[in-house]
Amino acid sequence: MEIKTIKKIGVLTSGGDAPGMNAAIRATVRAGFYYNLEMYGIYRGYEGMINDEIKKLDSKNIAHVLERGGTFLKSARSAEFRTPEGRKKAHDNLKKHGIDALVVIGGDGSLTGAHLFYKEFGIPAVGIPGTIDNDLAGTDITVGFDTACNTAIEAIDKIRDTATSHDRLFFVEVMGRDAGFIAINAGIGSAAAATLIPEKKMPIERLVERLKARTKAMKTSNIVIVAEGGKSGGAAEIAEKIKKELPYYDIKVTILGHLQRGGAPSALDRVLASKLGVAAVEGLLQGKYDVMAGVINNKVVYTPISKAILGEKEVDEDDFRVVRILST
Amino acid sequence: MEIKTIKKIGVLTSGGDAPGMNAAIRATVRAGFYYNLEMYGIYRGYEGMINDEIKKLDSKNIAHVLERGGTFLKSARSAEFRTPEGRKKAHDNLKKHGIDALVVIGGDGSLTGAHLFYKEFGIPAVGIPGTIDNDLAGTDITVGFDTACNTAIEAIDKIRDTATSHDRLFFVEVMGRDAGFIAINAGIGSAAAATLIPEKKMPIERLVERLKARTKAMKTSNIVIVAEGGKSGGAAEIAEKIKKELPYYDIKVTILGHLQRGGAPSALDRVLASKLGVAAVEGLLQGKYDVMAGVINNKVVYTPISKAILGEKEVDEDDFRVVRILST
Amino acid sequence: MEIKTIKKIGVLTSGGDAPGMNAAIRATVRAGFYYNLEMYGIYRGYEGMINDEIKKLDSKNIAHVLERGGTFLKSARSAEFRTPEGRKKAHDNLKKHGIDALVVIGGDGSLTGAHLFYKEFGIPAVGIPGTIDNDLAGTDITVGFDTACNTAIEAIDKIRDTATSHDRLFFVEVMGRDAGFIAINAGIGSAAAATLIPEKKMPIERLVERLKARTKAMKTSNIVIVAEGGKSGGAAEIAEKIKKELPYYDIKVTILGHLQRGGAPSALDRVLASKLGVAAVEGLLQGKYDVMAGVINNKVVYTPISKAILGEKEVDEDDFRVVRILST
Amino acid sequence: MEIKTIKKIGVLTSGGDAPGMNAAIRATVRAGFYYNLEMYGIYRGYEGMINDEIKKLDSKNIAHVLERGGTFLKSARSAEFRTPEGRKKAHDNLKKHGIDALVVIGGDGSLTGAHLFYKEFGIPAVGIPGTIDNDLAGTDITVGFDTACNTAIEAIDKIRDTATSHDRLFFVEVMGRDAGFIAINAGIGSAAAATLIPEKKMPIERLVERLKARTKAMKTSNIVIVAEGGKSGGAAEIAEKIKKELPYYDIKVTILGHLQRGGAPSALDRVLASKLGVAAVEGLLQGKYDVMAGVINNKVVYTPISKAILGEKEVDEDDFRVVRILST
Repeated sequence: MEIKTIKKIGVLTSGGDAPGMNAAIRATVRAGFYYNLEMYGIYRGYEGMINDEIKKLDSKNIAHVLERGGTFLKSARSAEFRTPEGRKKAHDNLKKHGIDALVVIGGDGSLTGAHLFYKEFGIPAVGIPGTIDNDLAGTDITVGFDTACNTAIEAIDKIRDTATSHDRLFFVEVMGRDAGFIAINAGIGSAAAATLIPEKKMPIERLVERLKARTKAMKTSNIVIVAEGGKSGGAAEIAEKIKKELPYYDIKVTILGHLQRGGAPSALDRVLASKLGVAAVEGLLQGKYDVMAGVINNKVVYTPISKAILGEKEVDEDDFRVVRILST
Repeated sequence: MEIKTIKKIGVLTSGGDAPGMNAAIRATVRAGFYYNLEMYGIYRGYEGMINDEIKKLDSKNIAHVLERGGTFLKSARSAEFRTPEGRKKAHDNLKKHGIDALVVIGGDGSLTGAHLFYKEFGIPAVGIPGTIDNDLAGTDITVGFDTACNTAIEAIDKIRDTATSHDRLFFVEVMGRDAGFIAINAGIGSAAAATLIPEKKMPIERLVERLKARTKAMKTSNIVIVAEGGKSGGAAEIAEKIKKELPYYDIKVTILGHLQRGGAPSALDRVLASKLGVAAVEGLLQGKYDVMAGVINNKVVYTPISKAILGEKEVDEDDFRVVRILST
Repeated sequence: MEIKTIKKIGVLTSGGDAPGMNAAIRATVRAGFYYNLEMYGIYRGYEGMINDEIKKLDSKNIAHVLERGGTFLKSARSAEFRTPEGRKKAHDNLKKHGIDALVVIGGDGSLTGAHLFYKEFGIPAVGIPGTIDNDLAGTDITVGFDTACNTAIEAIDKIRDTATSHDRLFFVEVMGRDAGFIAINAGIGSAAAATLIPEKKMPIERLVERLKARTKAMKTSNIVIVAEGGKSGGAAEIAEKIKKELPYYDIKVTILGHLQRGGAPSALDRVLASKLGVAAVEGLLQGKYDVMAGVINNKVVYTPISKAILGEKEVDEDDFRVVRILST
Repeated sequence: MEIKTIKKIGVLTSGGDAPGMNAAIRATVRAGFYYNLEMYGIYRGYEGMINDEIKKLDSKNIAHVLERGGTFLKSARSAEFRTPEGRKKAHDNLKKHGIDALVVIGGDGSLTGAHLFYKEFGIPAVGIPGTIDNDLAGTDITVGFDTACNTAIEAIDKIRDTATSHDRLFFVEVMGRDAGFIAINAGIGSAAAATLIPEKKMPIERLVERLKARTKAMKTSNIVIVAEGGKSGGAAEIAEKIKKELPYYDIKVTILGHLQRGGAPSALDRVLASKLGVAAVEGLLQGKYDVMAGVINNKVVYTPISKAILGEKEVDEDDFRVVRILST
């Protein structure tokens, strides 16, 4: 595959925001400057690419963003980018600015856009996995995942104070879309009585048994983590079912919601995002196109986007064992 | 009124837990030791008083609790204490342990119990205002309120990252029961577009106008704080109504819930709880009975419980003005 | 005193930065817009006034600053402003921009500058007490103080983990310049064994006695808070003296330093700064000149700057009693 | 090697405390209960083993410890354990309690003790790498490292507020003993101007050049991270040298110190410690003795202690590149 000359790179964030996206933008832009490239910010994702919300970036634009949650380039859904006409408009705008390549920071939907765009217009793109859900193959963890786990666990530590004071059973719903990564880590990290995740259906009866056993063992307060994407329903539905079975339990529900998507990125997310920003630019300069930069076993790797977005990343079986052993 | 000899004091926490309750228990017990008194922990509030869950406390019991949320003495509702028979059983247990006086840490319901108990059995009691809702007269702020405001604002700062990244309108529900104290402070402290509180009904039309005006002024992201006790409903109901009026807005709802009740107490709550713990014991020794210890204008004051529980503490009108001025 | 017409207000921050200064700038500017005034940012304090680093502010300048520590208007020492010639140059620049009045956010040195300027040129100024040291009369607490206390206590909670794990004696130095406000609050809020502050000299012998008594009472770990401005020296000096007296103690010293000056402002500092920003603008419009806006007993008050800077604000005697009672 | 029957396991923490040690103790004890073993806490490390500070643990001992920094089993230096007589006394105490095996949580010094003990008495021991310094081979990261990086970065974020407000140059010293792991992560995670670590000597001249270049590029505030173990001295010494070269810079020094050793463990440390606690018990039951349980490439691995303590774990060269690229 012929290595193209790249002089100008466009950076965009798309899909749900994640803590560390700003760090990834900053690293990408700084790496671009390091390699004497012109760097362009594409505001509001693919929608902004279509509406020519494209501006040249200088070091002032990326000052003091590393430590901030969210994405200063913003992100927006784009129905129009799903259409060939929409993508054509987007491509024209890139040409107008002389942008040769793209770094796309986002989840599977965002990377799919980059993949499609590369196939149609040959614009080299490297993806950076930016999503709290961690549901992308090609990287041990995604940018934003570690911060979301910390946010969830800090919130559950607070809920634990009330659960213990009132001998209560709390059902706490955490994000993660269809994957149980946040739930598993929150479950282990907050000594949960049980952790319900999409990948492993836990029959209500088994949960009832476990709660009864814990009461017998004088464990007067319990926290059950429920991943939002579970087939048996979210925290509210599960709590309702348990209420019927265990009417004398004092049951409360908390849905953590969007606070898991924001906040200053953790140390790990800042370092991961920084490494991947540099890797994305260096990947483009080395002719690695239509790939996602990730870190596997502490090494930067490039995975074809087509493979990364298949989402074949399973929650680690060994983590189940640890959850089960530590919550019996 | 005759000053009774007090040798043994019982301490209990009742009603919803609040950050700083442990600090108040610790200060009460330490002050008791300082004045050579025996101190008893009454576990699980009035229910525990009835069930004789009463234990003598030593300095080990209060080691490393100051910085922890919740209450290690636990708290539980007690239907039985509402009955004369239940209170009789409780009184007998106090007599059995030789407990002469009580320090009761909690909200209006808890202080009402102490008031009733004093009238029926003459057991001197001093209340410490422990509730995140701040809805007790006789003190500028209640123990737990400052920590809850910090928790709410930290969570809203995180939600703000997503609101800004996605140009979204977030409705965030905060606790406070029937009072708007947490909401007002969260509204001012997080630059909310609007703050809806039980004390001031804001017609939906006015909220719609304000949101439209802000969109016109290019304010692309908005956070509306909704106190849980508002007459026009919680955050979810308000969001529904706005959705109908402003269909093209990208609207999300987050109900912070119980995480506002927990967490390590803030500096202010630790200092306030410590002062009130000392004040409660000194009040009992000075013959101040059936009163609540509070801090008004930086001075410890004792307010008859009957007056404190009337809840005649209004949200400061000046705070409304500040909210309105800063959110236009 | 004749009330001047005020159309344009200049805002500046001077002296040591404090968390909440950005919130105060934002509130001042928003209040200015509310009263249809033009608002100007004077960057880098009095030095910037001399060098004409003065720019008109719009709402974009104050977007997303409320939650950020430090001051986006920056602050710098100015030897030249101490000279009549320097102040003349500053005054000429204000005239050039048509600025009629000033809001000065800072500590005693900053307010002294405003006072001097008013006397020399009649430029009405209202001060906002912005310093973590809390050493200004005319307000219960200064903007930045509550956040600094929370930062110190959070750091000491962490040091406590190591003190407890290793049965160690830690000397922790906190800021506060010549006042013991931060130290007293940190002492009460972290269950310190002793709290050394400039206002009350504690002879080394008494500290040695207290530490020995605690060891006898099986308190194997101890934290001693030392205010930086104490006459007997900072934490390192005190630790050296104690080391000689108690050689078998495992002693460590931590000087918290500048992290007490930064960080997202607490709920209380955000609300206080917001109230004082509105009060400053309204004060100017009501003809209140050469005063400091403060909050005393929950009410906004205006104190002549000449009085506010005399620093006659004593650490509350009652707080000493609480420290002593709770650390015996 | 013959797999011994193990019924009773003793757990101890030794060396510097680290956030996540309590989580590792809890997981080890819970895993022991899961496999029907009796679990014993050895308080105050090897010193406690010599002084028979050994108690049987039940689930109450490990309730609510997961989220707490430090180690409830405490840790103490032991000169006596370095002597054969001291180890003999320790061994006799284990025999007295019928303890068959050990789980030792600590750094290289602690694991060396376990190794020595195994060689002399054949007591099977599995080590868990508990140190913030991350200087142990046989595991990608050690328990406590991630929390220390987060604590350092949160503190530096606060210092950044003051550096930016005052256009200052801050030298911030971080822990790490002789390794630069914390410094590298803090450097990347806080956008440091330069990061000085023991492994790579940066001549003062080069640092002066970099600071001058940044001033030319209008970067008015700078943070330089200095690892405590660097050959050219700590932050104070480096600052002195720079002061001579760049006298007009406003230079401050902050030594973060022991707060990096404490605090609630991060999500990653809680999960890592939990996995390693289970792995240690399962390792013993599978006949894996005189090894350290670690996680490499997301998989639990067992490394001979003799190898783990050689400390041949280099700071990742690629991280240097990222630091250099992002700070130019």
